Amino acid sequence: MESETKSEIIDGTNRVLCKHGYAGLTMQKIADESSMTTAAIHYHFDTKEELLNVFLDNLIERFTEQLASEATDPRERLRAFFNAVFTSSNPDANGFPVAIMELKTQAPFQGLFRERFLGLDDMMREVVADIVADGIDDGHFEETDPDEVARLVTTTINGAHVRKVALGEPLDETHHVLENTLELHLGWPSGSEVVA
Amino acid sequence: MESETKSEIIDGTNRVLCKHGYAGLTMQKIADESSMTTAAIHYHFDTKEELLNVFLDNLIERFTEQLASEATDPRERLRAFFNAVFTSSNPDANGFPVAIMELKTQAPFQGLFRERFLGLDDMMREVVADIVADGIDDGHFEETDPDEVARLVTTTINGAHVRKVALGEPLDETHHVLENTLELHLGWPSGSEVVA
Repeated sequence: MESETKSEIIDGTNRVLCKHGYAGLTMQKIADESSMTTAAIHYHFDTKEELLNVFLDNLIERFTEQLASEATDPRERLRAFFNAVFTSSNPDANGFPVAIMELKTQAPFQGLFRERFLGLDDMMREVVADIVADGIDDGHFEETDPDEVARLVTTTINGAHVRKVALGEPLDETHHVLENTLELHLGWPSGSEVVA
Repeated sequence: MESETKSEIIDGTNRVLCKHGYAGLTMQKIADESSMTTAAIHYHFDTKEELLNVFLDNLIERFTEQLASEATDPRERLRAFFNAVFTSSNPDANGFPVAIMELKTQAPFQGLFRERFLGLDDMMREVVADIVADGIDDGHFEETDPDEVARLVTTTINGAHVRKVALGEPLDETHHVLENTLELHLGWPSGSEVVA
């Protein structure tokens, strides 16, 4: 499939998930939200689940790209991680929590969704644990358990997404709370400037 | 409506949400999962949304009852709160996160759901902030911002529910992480015995 067609379908799917939720997702609505016909969508995807697996891969891939940082200082890397998670230059940033929560609640019924979310979670925890371990090694962070900090960070991010969806609360609220908590774990105020 | 009929419909709704999700919830499936006919369910509830608003009130009411504790020591009250949230004698305990997440993802599309979740969140944060403030006053907890601790606790609990649903992770994992974090905030290891 050409990548333009694919992005067209993926973007349409994102808009439908954000407007109508998983329960309201139909091939017809995706066609309405894109320049494709339902026949063209069916030509590329046999089922809604097949389409959503590709959609999820794409969502995770774009998110993973956002997490990539060129910084080497663990404090800068942690800051970049939080910026990628809690804010975004992507105009769809507000839609991301809605789309991802819609699919997460389908995980008990869709094994392939669950596999992808387990992979995403492993990746995120590994990124954070690496940053924390490096920061301890180079003396910028206090001695602590990197895996446990990573688990706290990912669980809190999961919570931020639910709060955005269920309560309409901005992600910033959780960013602020997490920064203050990490200061206790790492002995480093992550909201502050990094002085080399 | 007699309370027996109501519980029958509510329990059936819970089972359908846990088995099929919001997207698969129909009056027919609720009838199949209870001893009611679809006609009887329609007699009590005009729409699926009306039924789900009552279901949600009931879920929140039962949860609020679980949070009630007779303890007076803030440390015991915090312990009781965590026991109510992370473990439960209720046989539906494993279903609770699935059912509540299914409805939370509907909040962007259902204003009445969102109102209820905002109320539930206010209540939970108030309970935790009161416990923390009392613990600081009586000298068992270190000086800290009770509202910020309450926000951290509720966000982490929100995250635990997503992780249960999306990853199949037991709630205990988050309980453990939260206890260790709170020890840093409160200077009190909440997993330890309370000695008066």
